[in-house]
Amino acid sequence: MNWCAQTGGARLARMTELTLTGIAAKIYAPIAALPILSPHGHCDPAWFAKDSAFPDPAALIITPDHYVFRMLYSQGVPLEAMGIGQPAGTTDPRAVFQLFADHWHLFLGTPSRLWIATMLREGFGISEPLTPETAMTIYDQIDAALATPAFRPRALFERMNIALLATTDAATDPLPHHQALKGSGWAGRVIPTFRPDTVLDPGDARFVAELGRLEEVSDTDAASYPGYLAALRSRRAQFRALGATATDHAIEHLDTAPCSTARAAELYGKARAGKIDDAEAAEFHGHMLCEMAVMSCEDGMVMQLHAGSRRNTNAQVFDSFGRDMGADMPVATDWVRGLEGLLGRCGNDPNFTLIAFTLDETTYARELAPMAGHWPCLRIGPPWWFHDSVAGIARYFDKVVETAGYQNLAGFNDDTRAFMSIPARHDVWRRCVAVHLAGQIARGYFGMGDARDLARQLSHDLARSAYKLHLP
Amino acid sequence: MNWCAQTGGARLARMTELTLTGIAAKIYAPIAALPILSPHGHCDPAWFAKDSAFPDPAALIITPDHYVFRMLYSQGVPLEAMGIGQPAGTTDPRAVFQLFADHWHLFLGTPSRLWIATMLREGFGISEPLTPETAMTIYDQIDAALATPAFRPRALFERMNIALLATTDAATDPLPHHQALKGSGWAGRVIPTFRPDTVLDPGDARFVAELGRLEEVSDTDAASYPGYLAALRSRRAQFRALGATATDHAIEHLDTAPCSTARAAELYGKARAGKIDDAEAAEFHGHMLCEMAVMSCEDGMVMQLHAGSRRNTNAQVFDSFGRDMGADMPVATDWVRGLEGLLGRCGNDPNFTLIAFTLDETTYARELAPMAGHWPCLRIGPPWWFHDSVAGIARYFDKVVETAGYQNLAGFNDDTRAFMSIPARHDVWRRCVAVHLAGQIARGYFGMGDARDLARQLSHDLARSAYKLHLP
Amino acid sequence: MNWCAQTGGARLARMTELTLTGIAAKIYAPIAALPILSPHGHCDPAWFAKDSAFPDPAALIITPDHYVFRMLYSQGVPLEAMGIGQPAGTTDPRAVFQLFADHWHLFLGTPSRLWIATMLREGFGISEPLTPETAMTIYDQIDAALATPAFRPRALFERMNIALLATTDAATDPLPHHQALKGSGWAGRVIPTFRPDTVLDPGDARFVAELGRLEEVSDTDAASYPGYLAALRSRRAQFRALGATATDHAIEHLDTAPCSTARAAELYGKARAGKIDDAEAAEFHGHMLCEMAVMSCEDGMVMQLHAGSRRNTNAQVFDSFGRDMGADMPVATDWVRGLEGLLGRCGNDPNFTLIAFTLDETTYARELAPMAGHWPCLRIGPPWWFHDSVAGIARYFDKVVETAGYQNLAGFNDDTRAFMSIPARHDVWRRCVAVHLAGQIARGYFGMGDARDLARQLSHDLARSAYKLHLP
Repeated sequence: MNWCAQTGGARLARMTELTLTGIAAKIYAPIAALPILSPHGHCDPAWFAKDSAFPDPAALIITPDHYVFRMLYSQGVPLEAMGIGQPAGTTDPRAVFQLFADHWHLFLGTPSRLWIATMLREGFGISEPLTPETAMTIYDQIDAALATPAFRPRALFERMNIALLATTDAATDPLPHHQALKGSGWAGRVIPTFRPDTVLDPGDARFVAELGRLEEVSDTDAASYPGYLAALRSRRAQFRALGATATDHAIEHLDTAPCSTARAAELYGKARAGKIDDAEAAEFHGHMLCEMAVMSCEDGMVMQLHAGSRRNTNAQVFDSFGRDMGADMPVATDWVRGLEGLLGRCGNDPNFTLIAFTLDETTYARELAPMAGHWPCLRIGPPWWFHDSVAGIARYFDKVVETAGYQNLAGFNDDTRAFMSIPARHDVWRRCVAVHLAGQIARGYFGMGDARDLARQLSHDLARSAYKLHLP
Repeated sequence: MNWCAQTGGARLARMTELTLTGIAAKIYAPIAALPILSPHGHCDPAWFAKDSAFPDPAALIITPDHYVFRMLYSQGVPLEAMGIGQPAGTTDPRAVFQLFADHWHLFLGTPSRLWIATMLREGFGISEPLTPETAMTIYDQIDAALATPAFRPRALFERMNIALLATTDAATDPLPHHQALKGSGWAGRVIPTFRPDTVLDPGDARFVAELGRLEEVSDTDAASYPGYLAALRSRRAQFRALGATATDHAIEHLDTAPCSTARAAELYGKARAGKIDDAEAAEFHGHMLCEMAVMSCEDGMVMQLHAGSRRNTNAQVFDSFGRDMGADMPVATDWVRGLEGLLGRCGNDPNFTLIAFTLDETTYARELAPMAGHWPCLRIGPPWWFHDSVAGIARYFDKVVETAGYQNLAGFNDDTRAFMSIPARHDVWRRCVAVHLAGQIARGYFGMGDARDLARQLSHDLARSAYKLHLP
Repeated sequence: MNWCAQTGGARLARMTELTLTGIAAKIYAPIAALPILSPHGHCDPAWFAKDSAFPDPAALIITPDHYVFRMLYSQGVPLEAMGIGQPAGTTDPRAVFQLFADHWHLFLGTPSRLWIATMLREGFGISEPLTPETAMTIYDQIDAALATPAFRPRALFERMNIALLATTDAATDPLPHHQALKGSGWAGRVIPTFRPDTVLDPGDARFVAELGRLEEVSDTDAASYPGYLAALRSRRAQFRALGATATDHAIEHLDTAPCSTARAAELYGKARAGKIDDAEAAEFHGHMLCEMAVMSCEDGMVMQLHAGSRRNTNAQVFDSFGRDMGADMPVATDWVRGLEGLLGRCGNDPNFTLIAFTLDETTYARELAPMAGHWPCLRIGPPWWFHDSVAGIARYFDKVVETAGYQNLAGFNDDTRAFMSIPARHDVWRRCVAVHLAGQIARGYFGMGDARDLARQLSHDLARSAYKLHLP
């Protein structure tokens, strides 16, 4: 039985290759079928609001997933050949899928291969392996399934046993799909997340235009710095009204030294006029992260911080294809000094929760675990992006737990826009949790009773509490 | 039988949960009961000089241990509630102990839990697990034990099989307790360590006042830079006369570029007048570490360097509670460039030993192991602070040994002020040594004979030789 | 049977201590005897051109190997006592070998011990362990073997089953030995590698003198910047004519921001006149790495980049003994920002291959794997120098594969000047490959069929394709 079988019962993806034995299997069994909480990710709310069929297998699996197309690009496959950045209808999805199958061996050893293989097997009931030869048969099987009601987004959401899914939405997004969902009567819980990067960072080329959209959608005059803050507060409230419990922020170089209100107003004026230099833009951005923390103390929204990704490092690809084309790269991050301003202002506030995500694994043991083991506000987010993998999860637990314990972790989130991979991603996490906890028993840290309790927390409860999700 | 049983025989703590099997067990057996050398730590010499009973269970286990109270603070427990920074007698130790027991689950997966559980079981013979319900019963058991002669510091020292324990003492400390110990006739070896941070770093707010104390206690006029150096030399000699074999130094950002004597004298003048800026203070501090190395070449004292801890990062906690409140955080450290000045001056001197401790594990394989595999003076200290844990020790061996070998390591030290946890800490190390060496046999690096020899060295001999301890 | 046995059949070194069992043994068996590709290393081409006997055991094993003598130096053995930097004939090689044997225990747990022990056992058929007592007997055995035809370089090359070996040669080297080899009729493939560091980096004290040699050997006037580029192009062509497929570059601090041609010409003028400051020298060096990449796009030579080694950190040793004395130390490296200039210019060119070697393992997962999983040109080199070890290789796979896959790796190279250790080094790699792949099967990433295929690629095929080796 797989989770695409329309038997009514929710069924989690299996990753049968990662066979758990002994203690690990015993820890895993009771958490395997827990409902999925997905408090951070990049699914499109329109999917659930409109509940339309996904167009074709390539559009489901390949073109939206930068994990996938970056690997083909690294081996010389042009992005154009995968239909990336091409006008709709100009690329044959069958040809794209065949190209993907021809390069499927590139993914050996990567979590993408685990996720996609699991999705094909458990989601679509396809038992034969993907090869260049089987590609078109498998394409047809997926294509046929997508045309059925059982593969509409809402039906999948339910069958995949998702209890809650948060999308990530620009601060300037009027959230029409979330509005529609609220009035739809559908029981699935899909909530927005407030992501204001483009209206906080004057170094972003879209900043000035986005300010205009912010004013419009918030119906607030943001000509002055106080007006700007009011517009942001207004948008946060609107997000909360649609169920949002969290904000999300990305920054390459972390520095959150706050500046005075007068200085902030001055920088805002320059930024709004498009006359701010790079250093000033960074100063303003860091200051505004502090302001976001202050607003979180006020309104209780959980603040997520994704630091250390250098965006768009391939200028040629950026010029031709735009953002999110697989050329974002991690850089070293200094969490201790970088968060000093923000934590100095809000770190001891009992109403404040900050979830930190890093791409610099050296900071797990050196910085984030010691910080989370002290600051009341701080929770360590799960392994992010390139590190959401079997070995990456093992390294995470190895390096954070002994100093931070488990209660300072934020559980798991899948961070994906590949909707149908969600069960596989949570299942990899849960299996890795079981392996880790079995190791802790062997290391003498605790026994089976504690391990089972922690397994449930890591798979479900910690995400719920860290994100302040109020679930039935 | 446990080590609190008054059977006369020294007995090391057991950490029964970390069951060693096969080869590891065979390697562990002969080292389990070796005498403990504790050449670096923070016990109070007054305990042994006065040999008074410890006041109560909270004062023994909770309030002096920042590992413990920082974790409760991270989950929202105010420091005040644990009696931290409160006037003596105003906080009920029973209430503090109950609070600790209520949050005991936070420590799952942390070495603190291993150490404390072992201490309760082996030190106090308490077999029932600590829970909110058992807290008061266990409190009473500990309290009753502490009132008996067998739990006086000297009796514990002997029963815990400690062959030598070094304390850490300010350069300005007149060392009355060490003086008293010397004349006491007690056979226990407790020696001081020369820690001059506050009189070397003009960036420390206590610098000027401490200079005054330095002059007084050394009976030396330190108005001039040569006088200052003479005062430091005098104090080093006084420490040595009381058994000290080592100095200890902490610095956040490592930079040891030496300056000329004229420049040093100029900076000293400014520092003494309280008119030195941050950059100059750092320059002077780095220079003075070189001077300490030069003095070590002269007098043979082993130089310990603890680099990369950013102190007091929580201003609100610092303002209310002072130092050592769990808000010190590790930062990235550059050992190669940072030690260039000091090693250029003293690194090839056969009379010089430098033991380096890092909180930046990335430097194990990248910097410290290659450096220790070249410089005659350099020994790598054991995993420090947050990294003194089962996984932390495994990472340490994994990353240092293949490049530095074993003879460039400094063995183990417990670095603790939690006196009764010392046997448990050494036992965790010894068990982890056994696990590591069993792994090396499996990896093909050597056989059982070499493993047994190395186990003994790592548990005992290397600490003795690195710290130049002259033991019977 | 060992590979020194003159039975005619090629036989790879065994490292019998690292016994592989179960799945790992099954993966290892078919790759154990694959021919050795050694596309990067530091053997002397004169050995093969002249085919003279190696002079004595100390000159074979100790004096050319900085891994070896640095360890003895770290424990107080003077370099002079090992004959380092001493006039030929003034040091008794027997005394040097005895000294080495007396300190053989220092190498416990290091790959040097594995390599040397394997070489003694498999290369020389010596079964008794090296000890202070057996040293002279073993010396005699080696010495006697070296005098026989079977231990001449060409015979060893063939018996060690080396299919190709690349040396590393200065850009100014007239390559007489490679010329001689080409006309020798010997079937062994020994090719040069173009290493132009001293003529690209004006910060190198040898720069101006080396420019003179460059002009001479290329017969090109390099007075002007265009002339200089022409001279470099000419030398690259000469290297290619002798079989070279690759260039090699070392840099401590990676920064490849290109400058304009006018600026480059200005800096070249200053450098040639010996009037360039440090910042300008670094700017020029970084720019010239870009130019090397551009030339690689033109001529197809594979570009190797070894970044992050700080050279000659022990001034006293450097002054007395010169370069390569074991005092080169790794430093943290920023690959993402450091390569931005070079990749922006050449990163998407299908004719360009860049192989990156790091001494900063933190960049495996954080930078190199994400970069290699995107940039078409980039391949990750195998663990380098201190990290070419059992645990180092395990960390490498653990951290690169999940993001980069296997096809973005460059296979293995031994990077050694210790000729007779080559089989042992490749064998350690192959065994570690087998252990890694067995782990991947357990982790569920793939099955035995894929593992066997990947084992062959990692041991042989990936090196061939990454280095564009055209082999029969």
